[in-house]
Amino acid sequence: MGYEGDGHDAPVRHRAENIVADEKVAASRRGFLKSAGLGLAGATLAGLSGTAAQAAETPIGDKWWPSKWGAEDQAGASNHMGPQKTLEAVQNIKTGKVHSLGHVYEADMPLFGQRVFALRTPGMPTGGTFGDNKIIWNDEFLATEIGQVGTQFDGLGHIGVVTGEPGDHTEKRLYNGVTMAEAASPYGLKKLGIEHVKPFFTPGVLIDVMGLKGAMLEAGTEITVADLEAALERQGLSGDAIRPGDVVVIRSGWGLLWKEDNERYNSGEPGIGLEAARYLAEKQVSLVGADCWGVEVVPNPDSTQVFPAHQELLVRHGIYLHENLNLESLTADASWRFAYIFAPLPIKGATGSPGNPLAVT
Amino acid sequence: MGYEGDGHDAPVRHRAENIVADEKVAASRRGFLKSAGLGLAGATLAGLSGTAAQAAETPIGDKWWPSKWGAEDQAGASNHMGPQKTLEAVQNIKTGKVHSLGHVYEADMPLFGQRVFALRTPGMPTGGTFGDNKIIWNDEFLATEIGQVGTQFDGLGHIGVVTGEPGDHTEKRLYNGVTMAEAASPYGLKKLGIEHVKPFFTPGVLIDVMGLKGAMLEAGTEITVADLEAALERQGLSGDAIRPGDVVVIRSGWGLLWKEDNERYNSGEPGIGLEAARYLAEKQVSLVGADCWGVEVVPNPDSTQVFPAHQELLVRHGIYLHENLNLESLTADASWRFAYIFAPLPIKGATGSPGNPLAVT
Amino acid sequence: MGYEGDGHDAPVRHRAENIVADEKVAASRRGFLKSAGLGLAGATLAGLSGTAAQAAETPIGDKWWPSKWGAEDQAGASNHMGPQKTLEAVQNIKTGKVHSLGHVYEADMPLFGQRVFALRTPGMPTGGTFGDNKIIWNDEFLATEIGQVGTQFDGLGHIGVVTGEPGDHTEKRLYNGVTMAEAASPYGLKKLGIEHVKPFFTPGVLIDVMGLKGAMLEAGTEITVADLEAALERQGLSGDAIRPGDVVVIRSGWGLLWKEDNERYNSGEPGIGLEAARYLAEKQVSLVGADCWGVEVVPNPDSTQVFPAHQELLVRHGIYLHENLNLESLTADASWRFAYIFAPLPIKGATGSPGNPLAVT
Amino acid sequence: MGYEGDGHDAPVRHRAENIVADEKVAASRRGFLKSAGLGLAGATLAGLSGTAAQAAETPIGDKWWPSKWGAEDQAGASNHMGPQKTLEAVQNIKTGKVHSLGHVYEADMPLFGQRVFALRTPGMPTGGTFGDNKIIWNDEFLATEIGQVGTQFDGLGHIGVVTGEPGDHTEKRLYNGVTMAEAASPYGLKKLGIEHVKPFFTPGVLIDVMGLKGAMLEAGTEITVADLEAALERQGLSGDAIRPGDVVVIRSGWGLLWKEDNERYNSGEPGIGLEAARYLAEKQVSLVGADCWGVEVVPNPDSTQVFPAHQELLVRHGIYLHENLNLESLTADASWRFAYIFAPLPIKGATGSPGNPLAVT
Repeated sequence: MGYEGDGHDAPVRHRAENIVADEKVAASRRGFLKSAGLGLAGATLAGLSGTAAQAAETPIGDKWWPSKWGAEDQAGASNHMGPQKTLEAVQNIKTGKVHSLGHVYEADMPLFGQRVFALRTPGMPTGGTFGDNKIIWNDEFLATEIGQVGTQFDGLGHIGVVTGEPGDHTEKRLYNGVTMAEAASPYGLKKLGIEHVKPFFTPGVLIDVMGLKGAMLEAGTEITVADLEAALERQGLSGDAIRPGDVVVIRSGWGLLWKEDNERYNSGEPGIGLEAARYLAEKQVSLVGADCWGVEVVPNPDSTQVFPAHQELLVRHGIYLHENLNLESLTADASWRFAYIFAPLPIKGATGSPGNPLAVT
Repeated sequence: MGYEGDGHDAPVRHRAENIVADEKVAASRRGFLKSAGLGLAGATLAGLSGTAAQAAETPIGDKWWPSKWGAEDQAGASNHMGPQKTLEAVQNIKTGKVHSLGHVYEADMPLFGQRVFALRTPGMPTGGTFGDNKIIWNDEFLATEIGQVGTQFDGLGHIGVVTGEPGDHTEKRLYNGVTMAEAASPYGLKKLGIEHVKPFFTPGVLIDVMGLKGAMLEAGTEITVADLEAALERQGLSGDAIRPGDVVVIRSGWGLLWKEDNERYNSGEPGIGLEAARYLAEKQVSLVGADCWGVEVVPNPDSTQVFPAHQELLVRHGIYLHENLNLESLTADASWRFAYIFAPLPIKGATGSPGNPLAVT
Repeated sequence: MGYEGDGHDAPVRHRAENIVADEKVAASRRGFLKSAGLGLAGATLAGLSGTAAQAAETPIGDKWWPSKWGAEDQAGASNHMGPQKTLEAVQNIKTGKVHSLGHVYEADMPLFGQRVFALRTPGMPTGGTFGDNKIIWNDEFLATEIGQVGTQFDGLGHIGVVTGEPGDHTEKRLYNGVTMAEAASPYGLKKLGIEHVKPFFTPGVLIDVMGLKGAMLEAGTEITVADLEAALERQGLSGDAIRPGDVVVIRSGWGLLWKEDNERYNSGEPGIGLEAARYLAEKQVSLVGADCWGVEVVPNPDSTQVFPAHQELLVRHGIYLHENLNLESLTADASWRFAYIFAPLPIKGATGSPGNPLAVT
Repeated sequence: MGYEGDGHDAPVRHRAENIVADEKVAASRRGFLKSAGLGLAGATLAGLSGTAAQAAETPIGDKWWPSKWGAEDQAGASNHMGPQKTLEAVQNIKTGKVHSLGHVYEADMPLFGQRVFALRTPGMPTGGTFGDNKIIWNDEFLATEIGQVGTQFDGLGHIGVVTGEPGDHTEKRLYNGVTMAEAASPYGLKKLGIEHVKPFFTPGVLIDVMGLKGAMLEAGTEITVADLEAALERQGLSGDAIRPGDVVVIRSGWGLLWKEDNERYNSGEPGIGLEAARYLAEKQVSLVGADCWGVEVVPNPDSTQVFPAHQELLVRHGIYLHENLNLESLTADASWRFAYIFAPLPIKGATGSPGNPLAVT
């Protein structure tokens, strides 16, 4: 199964021969997800019995709209942001040390699926020479999936659920029930664009699951609620440390493969599953980040499910994801609590944002 | 004179007929700088007598390298950043209010010269449908001069000076004396790329020159040291409020034209000149920002000079520029002092960075 | 009404206030189609009575699939190509003169809607120096709507008809009844891509309607069958000169505005309407070209219709369009008959092709 | 040695350690040219004695400008085109069969160095729904090194020679002695752009060296004049079959690896060397094509030389190259002589052109 396409013909493409064929294409490109084994046979929704699944209003359970921030809301869990959270976060700033959690953007970084990153510097110099001061200047030209490469912040327009017939865009729904028919546009989303997100300045908590386990987790390993709580306890914290509006970032160790083994990095990942996603949603966090490319476990241990935590967090709760973080510096300092500061790049109609989130201690 | 080209043929292009011809091209595109009147006749360097100019080591005066941070430095005035400046900045955070100083990025924003901004959303959806959870996703594809459009942070690879013969890349010099021969590459600068800049978390000072003058300044109006000091005094501050490593942002009012009259916005601007640039450099600021597209006055009142403050700040002192800021919210609150937080997008080899700088009070 | 968007919400956007709003956007960009007056009030399909329209199988009349070349065909009227047509075309080659019918591609050419054309030359040089032979090389990087800018050949994946409910991609149909659900993909069409088109080497006929009228036709002027036949007669030809598989190119004179007045050029155009499109389809031509941007009259005199000739030719008959041709050289030579040679750029999954069609006499 | 960069620092980069380092980068991307062994040790120019090399005016021998078509010429060997060559070519058209010599353009094709090919289809549909005729349309957006990917025609701005000091753009010379200082621009070459090339309609000759040898030639195998003449003889032709202005295309068999083994395809190639290039230049051909990515042997048996045939043909003689051709269909038909028809995509200031050349028999 290739990770692309419109999927109106999903029943056709689910046939095994297509999976093999498409995977060969993907593999010849970037060795992506060779054995993801996505969503073939399963008939039940994780966490629901078969009967309940039949009764569910949507493929992910009960309908999730309108949001608790109102039917018109486009900011999701960034609504937690505000003076109170800023001042709470400032309480975490004691030494003044600033940690960059972002990776450098470059053509050699791991890229998902068919995405590209192409930077070109025109002319060298691009402008000049002008004036007696003989000025010259340089630009750069970038062509890329800007919000979905490298360290990336997933916005609310990124993920959806098909709630109706294949091919019916009036029943492809995003956060707050927004339909693709309402949001889709060739020149940037008409709704739920990244420009609606409020800047993050809020307390952050790092949960070092690799530290708990003593080694990098393997692809396909699900991080459970018990793992999160045990890791917090090991760090001298508890689940109560996580308050509404806080950011949680999770270290799996997978990020150590970044640019060291891109093929393996892209082939799957450890991460949270639906259980931990629901736990964090109950805590009302504003964002969940991790040092892997999708925050959640891939392939999912429930082979009928593909990226279900993305839906639980982004679609149902408006909780953002921050992917491909570098958590090594924070971990080395045992800086479990910090101020998390990130202003998404406000590109009108974008589904996500690049950028370098800061953790200040 | 068109603002483009390699300029090896500068003597030829300085002929009046070429200026007219090139301007017609520019005007037919975006009405850029119709009457810039750049660098035609002058023989002297501003601030130097004709004799001194002849004696100067470079077109902008004495050689400026090695930098005070060493001959290998690529971080410039971001070297001021560190725990002490962070903690100083935190002292400015009292209410917890977060101001976004960045504009939204969109195709309709004013663009300099021939730069473009093209966002496309592939497929709608880009991925899916997959799994029993019927997930879909959306990406966006962006092609643009990423570091030099919209609200932009100029890096040290952006601006240079021709210090030798036209066409000689071993004497086109940037910050710290780095030559184009060393830095130039088709796939991102090999030196002075934006990835070397340290994130900004430092005290900021807003100087409201429009408030002082009572109206938006006109294009070609130079903001002087006297203006800056009078504005600070009006705000109950003085030049002493600016300490090494601080950020200074200047409100000219020109930003009120943003998307209201793009043609006029691009046609020139008010801003600082060489005098004020030197004043701010002596204060050892880390960054100068403004609510116009180039921070400095265009056309320069000295018609022989084209963007000389860019050279004074970026090339000679490694002091960064932040252009196309939105300073209206800060001004409305009379929030003259704040914490300035900005993490440049660390694109390897880029000349600048987009992003949304935050001012926290 | 802006010429963009997904249109699932077409009923809403048809409201007059939206038209004005969207037009303002378009105008601020490239002054496009200010007064197109598209599809507002009409209830009837041109050529059908109201009752017949209600009874029609699709918004453009009876269903048009399967094609006469079979239900699996993706080559349309290029199926006419073959040794016989080649040899017929060669009969038109007498002097050996080769006319280029294409315009140069450049950023300053007229562009439709929000399309862009951005060429950048990386590095200068892009590669080298290598070897004792001290080689260097240059590349260029282009970002553009490649098949839909400048002189362009419209492929069969370009145009469709909504045959069902808004938002239902299983009833958005292209040539041969192919649905968007089958063809759509973020990385190039899965069906009807330009790579299926057979190269054109066939007789061509130029119809000089401007010559007939004595002046450039105005935007909104429909070229009728009577016009075509009168023009042919003036040229010493008749409708019988057009045989199955031939190419017909029509000179309206609108192309004289190319780069002379881009705003006017884009604001509308003279061209054929449904009547002439049906006439040419009955002649079984393989391609219709013109010296304007859309071959057909805009705005359509029937204000309920938007680009109906595109649908008649491309969707119903698989007949290709060639837009933005330069017919001046052929006309100056009174070369009414020629060999038409064009090999579309075989970009997998593209909707159209750039290129320089040749007319050889 | 990486095939990129400005090379002002060529002496440094020639060191063996850098070769290894740069090769690792290239290999991690597309496995390009692992063992090219470029230009390390040699001190002599191929074909010249050491003494002569010291006396040579340029690194490739005597100066090559002005061209035989005049000092202002920008069309090179396409100047051979004209009515006489067209009519000669038509003599080769007997059956009317049209062979496409171009490959399909797609992301999975072999790409040289760091070049990319990224096609995205915006919106699906991109435009509509409009009118009672309910029209929709699709576009595509392409970002790529347009003239230097896939089947490609090398223009005269593509290749040059450093004739002076490293870093001196006034002594980097292209065809007709044009300097980079004259031609370079961030937005397309100012001289020698592809738009100056005249369309090709001329006799073509296929030389089947693979047929002669009985198997695909290996990378690094130089095709000699003796090979060319023996192959022609085997085909019942002789060197006299090649007349001024003709096109010669050479089949090495390397093209059989296209998309079958991209890594091997890119790792080197068989092809002509300087000797055969000079032979073809003496024949005054207009273009040399081949079924490999660079027409000439890589690595060159003379390890001091990198792409010297490119310089001999393009720079010294203005003879064009056509790379990545598909010659299998012509060979299967034993169609050694044909009309060669190709109209370069006239992109202003481009260094090359994509497209589908036709061979008509």
